[in-house]
Amino acid sequence: MSVLVVGSIALDTVKTPFGEVKEALGGSATYFALSANHYTQVSLVAVVGSDFPKKHLRLFKRRGIDTKGLKIKKGKTFRWKGYYEYDLNQAHTQKTELNVFRTFHPKIPEKYKRIEYIFLANIDPQLQLSVLRQVKRPKLVLCDTMNYWIEKKRKELLLTLKEVDILLLNDSEARELTGEHSLFKASRRILKMGPETVIIKKGEHGALMWSENSHFAAPGYPLEDINDPTGAGDSFAGGFLGFLAYTNDLCEENIRKAIVFGSVMASYNVEDFSIERLKGLKDKEIIERYREFKRMTHFEDLSGEVIE
Amino acid sequence: MSVLVVGSIALDTVKTPFGEVKEALGGSATYFALSANHYTQVSLVAVVGSDFPKKHLRLFKRRGIDTKGLKIKKGKTFRWKGYYEYDLNQAHTQKTELNVFRTFHPKIPEKYKRIEYIFLANIDPQLQLSVLRQVKRPKLVLCDTMNYWIEKKRKELLLTLKEVDILLLNDSEARELTGEHSLFKASRRILKMGPETVIIKKGEHGALMWSENSHFAAPGYPLEDINDPTGAGDSFAGGFLGFLAYTNDLCEENIRKAIVFGSVMASYNVEDFSIERLKGLKDKEIIERYREFKRMTHFEDLSGEVIE
Repeated sequence: MSVLVVGSIALDTVKTPFGEVKEALGGSATYFALSANHYTQVSLVAVVGSDFPKKHLRLFKRRGIDTKGLKIKKGKTFRWKGYYEYDLNQAHTQKTELNVFRTFHPKIPEKYKRIEYIFLANIDPQLQLSVLRQVKRPKLVLCDTMNYWIEKKRKELLLTLKEVDILLLNDSEARELTGEHSLFKASRRILKMGPETVIIKKGEHGALMWSENSHFAAPGYPLEDINDPTGAGDSFAGGFLGFLAYTNDLCEENIRKAIVFGSVMASYNVEDFSIERLKGLKDKEIIERYREFKRMTHFEDLSGEVIE
Repeated sequence: MSVLVVGSIALDTVKTPFGEVKEALGGSATYFALSANHYTQVSLVAVVGSDFPKKHLRLFKRRGIDTKGLKIKKGKTFRWKGYYEYDLNQAHTQKTELNVFRTFHPKIPEKYKRIEYIFLANIDPQLQLSVLRQVKRPKLVLCDTMNYWIEKKRKELLLTLKEVDILLLNDSEARELTGEHSLFKASRRILKMGPETVIIKKGEHGALMWSENSHFAAPGYPLEDINDPTGAGDSFAGGFLGFLAYTNDLCEENIRKAIVFGSVMASYNVEDFSIERLKGLKDKEIIERYREFKRMTHFEDLSGEVIE
């Protein structure tokens, strides 16, 4: 099964304590696509300006990403400038130039409309809903959002959430969306808003998954060097949804595995700036790190032991 | 095997967003003892003042804790006053009255000197070292510390660490001790300071363990209500060392299990103020939560899958 992503493509200028890049390839759809396409076919709906470097288009093509839904519009590509301090969980935005992204109205090409796995990356919830109005009975809709939409378009976001299967968001967003500090309580509330499952990203601390009857905790991968956290969440989404689509199996066990694949992709992504690490990643590296996650979290269950 | 703890006993006045207590039983040795004694015999070396409520002494006795090493000294018991805001990982101290604790010089009773499992709770590193000078070839020395000693008695702390098997500290302490922001790098450095193993507590985010060839990540337990985080670290230490002493097995697999038992005890402790939750805790509750940790972290290893 293939996946459809609707989101942003950006040129990012990023500074971290470990280095910087200028106008590097970024954006939620970019990270998602370059992560998910290690698992399955990816179709992309996004917009860039006429200044978008051809080499990035060639990269998408080389990686087999279907760019029929990528619109090249007269004007400038979306640009983001920001920095991180030592607390890499917190991005500081210096400048956002929406440019051609300001009037983005995702139009789903006919041949994408039957794709069954969909990622609604972090865009205006009204646009997210408009995507769902265009497609035919997807099997799984994964949705991201951010504080900006929670504050400015709460009503629209709540409408969109009613049609989403899995909501993916970070801990501060979950708190803001629900008004609950406890992630346990926040998750319970989110499950009442529509999604059957919620996944809360906690950056270096891993990810939590809740559904009605189940709970899963995946740790963060301890990295010697985290160079640039930009795109970690979308790389996670790519590994997660890519694996689910590839296996086309939505049982609980498989969802847990998908979360670990998501964590693997996020952990690789942050090792380098922009999409540098993702684009050259080898399948055997993915498998190797998955197994490392397994070893790292392993402990024996209790057998017959009795405590005094 | 039994365990020896050397640490503080305090009367704590604590306020959190969820309630408050005045002059409630607290202190590192208290939490450790009431946690570890669910697993094994605990011997206590500490000091209290003549104002120390008799009911607390009766509690220790009722729980079978050996208090031969507990000195009752003329004067007032150590008192701590503090509060927590919504970020329960951060304690704010309002007042510390050392009182009789100011001149605490732990003297190990003869019959404790052959105890093989020792917890050096968070006290002056010189006192921690003096304990090790008094005992005979323990099998395992677990040591805690805090930012205050890292700043004020670094040299002494480094001397103590040379004789410690496992260092237990929180993430900010690990960073301060090593000057490394990455916990991965911080752990590597700590392993060069003496300990064979380091355990980094991350509060609600769980705990990490590193030794030369191995790494283990335990998640935090997602609680609906955290009422008072005071004593979580020492409750963790109690479950961890109590289980190791009870099983008297220091293989890697058993250390991982001990970390989960530590996490179980910490997760129960924070459900109520002071030692209220620990003191009435039932063995079957401990086992039940251990199994819940197992279910919560379970995911399947990769078998024959191939990624595209």
